[in-house]
Amino acid sequence: MTVDSPNPERILDIGQGFWASKTLMSATKLGVFTELDRNGPQTVEELEDALGLHPRGSRDFLDALVALDLLDREDGQYRNTPESAAFLVEGKPTSFAGWFEMINDRLYPFWSNLETALRTGRTQNELDDEQTHPFEGVIYQDDEILEQFVGAMTSLSMGAAEVFAHEFPWKDHETVVDLGTSEGIVPKRIAEENDHVHAIGADLPRIEPYFQDFAGKSPAADRIEFQAADFFADEPLPAADVYILGHILHDWGLDDKRAILAKVAEAVNPGGAIIVYGTMIDEERRDAELPLLMSLNMLIETPDGSDYTAGQCIEWVHEAGFEGGEAKPLPGPDTMVVARK
Amino acid sequence: MTVDSPNPERILDIGQGFWASKTLMSATKLGVFTELDRNGPQTVEELEDALGLHPRGSRDFLDALVALDLLDREDGQYRNTPESAAFLVEGKPTSFAGWFEMINDRLYPFWSNLETALRTGRTQNELDDEQTHPFEGVIYQDDEILEQFVGAMTSLSMGAAEVFAHEFPWKDHETVVDLGTSEGIVPKRIAEENDHVHAIGADLPRIEPYFQDFAGKSPAADRIEFQAADFFADEPLPAADVYILGHILHDWGLDDKRAILAKVAEAVNPGGAIIVYGTMIDEERRDAELPLLMSLNMLIETPDGSDYTAGQCIEWVHEAGFEGGEAKPLPGPDTMVVARK
Repeated sequence: MTVDSPNPERILDIGQGFWASKTLMSATKLGVFTELDRNGPQTVEELEDALGLHPRGSRDFLDALVALDLLDREDGQYRNTPESAAFLVEGKPTSFAGWFEMINDRLYPFWSNLETALRTGRTQNELDDEQTHPFEGVIYQDDEILEQFVGAMTSLSMGAAEVFAHEFPWKDHETVVDLGTSEGIVPKRIAEENDHVHAIGADLPRIEPYFQDFAGKSPAADRIEFQAADFFADEPLPAADVYILGHILHDWGLDDKRAILAKVAEAVNPGGAIIVYGTMIDEERRDAELPLLMSLNMLIETPDGSDYTAGQCIEWVHEAGFEGGEAKPLPGPDTMVVARK
Repeated sequence: MTVDSPNPERILDIGQGFWASKTLMSATKLGVFTELDRNGPQTVEELEDALGLHPRGSRDFLDALVALDLLDREDGQYRNTPESAAFLVEGKPTSFAGWFEMINDRLYPFWSNLETALRTGRTQNELDDEQTHPFEGVIYQDDEILEQFVGAMTSLSMGAAEVFAHEFPWKDHETVVDLGTSEGIVPKRIAEENDHVHAIGADLPRIEPYFQDFAGKSPAADRIEFQAADFFADEPLPAADVYILGHILHDWGLDDKRAILAKVAEAVNPGGAIIVYGTMIDEERRDAELPLLMSLNMLIETPDGSDYTAGQCIEWVHEAGFEGGEAKPLPGPDTMVVARK
């Protein structure tokens, strides 16, 4: 190596990226952004008191957040950036705090076993039983994890919900089912922006209280309804003009993906549509960094889930009986596929 | 939130950065880059066989490395990029493989306790005893960890070693001691490029075999010497014209930092110099992301270590009896401070 040789900085930035990542997640978890939002700019000593931070690391921690452009500092007082205020404060409608708390507590430690997952093909989550899906085995069983999870799903679906509410041709349709709805951000925003639409959130019965506490408090609540549904049960799904499936298919293996789409196809009224959205890998499998990493996350989290390309998705919805099908990017890393029946 | 609101992508990139980070480290640990360097481009099936990868995740894993620009893929065959070939292949003189294996195995899991470290001010490494430095308690005790550690230190000091070998005014000096030398990349490169200089690597006795196996095999080995030294022992350090301290001071608290510099000042010949290098925080503590995160790493790893600014370093070397002192950036994230006696 001479002084002019290739520079290792990009590789060090990626490889050491867990330091910045964990610093952002810890700040969210410790409530730095929420505290500054509620009680205004504060000094390092005030934040130590408010958040229970030890003086040994507090200044380095807060200044690292300044260097990451996640906090501003002026005259010794720390404050949120506009970006942090929008996305990292708990309880705000645009917050990703739930997502970061969930991935901090669960996914970060599970990913330490990525090598084992790659060698064995087996899940590396809380479950000893490799055949149980984490939805059955953990997430829908534990109150604290479920609350984080439904909050995380709301964070991840906010951008898509706005696009569906404003850009889908609702004038041609009267009913919509959001399958696997969690807190119901998607039916909530569609009903709020389109006052002839009846919007149903469908999920396992365990989810209803979270849905009622979120979507159920909408000004449009008289047109927003929760329906208990299990897409693997024998009963048919409720009929509707439009079905939306967000961040669902990648949780399952190929046979289950097809079974879910077939069941949805039976429930969509003639002239209706299906919208599938989530991370999707580019057709060449060369560019879509986050969707490919999300697929590794499905290896860590689920017995046989994986991400897929928009082309694969269109092929599967055709097999299920839909026609047409176009892929469009959503805000953030997600893509949507829309097809007609 | 409307469709035109601030975009959460930057925050998601930072916060989810542990996925890309862990993927790079796992690929290094599993030997992807070393295998492709030794045996040429290979298909996914060939790499599964060579590396023991399970087919469930192998294609997503390798294509994620393509999306991260860490591999190229052509006609279904994966190959290293020039950057990966330079920095991620084991055994190459420019390799960071040792560093990434060390941070993958030790630091990644320790950082999952960052919140605890920030609340308590206490180390989160393998040690139950919070007062023992990991050098005594772990790193210098365990063969496998020590081998990773000395390799990691070589990776981190390569760029600096070239600058010292080529740019320091050696015509005015005949002897140099690199204190805490590990495998001795710094004395090796200085001796190789300056044939009147006698270069000493000083470290604890336990390190000598690693030094002899690396620096001791240099063509300039007759002017490269290992000396056992402990900068906290009563004995004076060996006399020399120039002392170099790389990635040392941040391992220790302020009193120890000062004690080390005082002891070095006694050992430097009149007319000599000291070079201190490592990550250094910018004076305003606003911009130097990696040094601030490195300081949090010292919270995780050491009882009272922390990073510092070049200005603080110059103040401490003045207290120890040196004069002048200027800070210059090195290749990568490090800075050096040079002062005269």
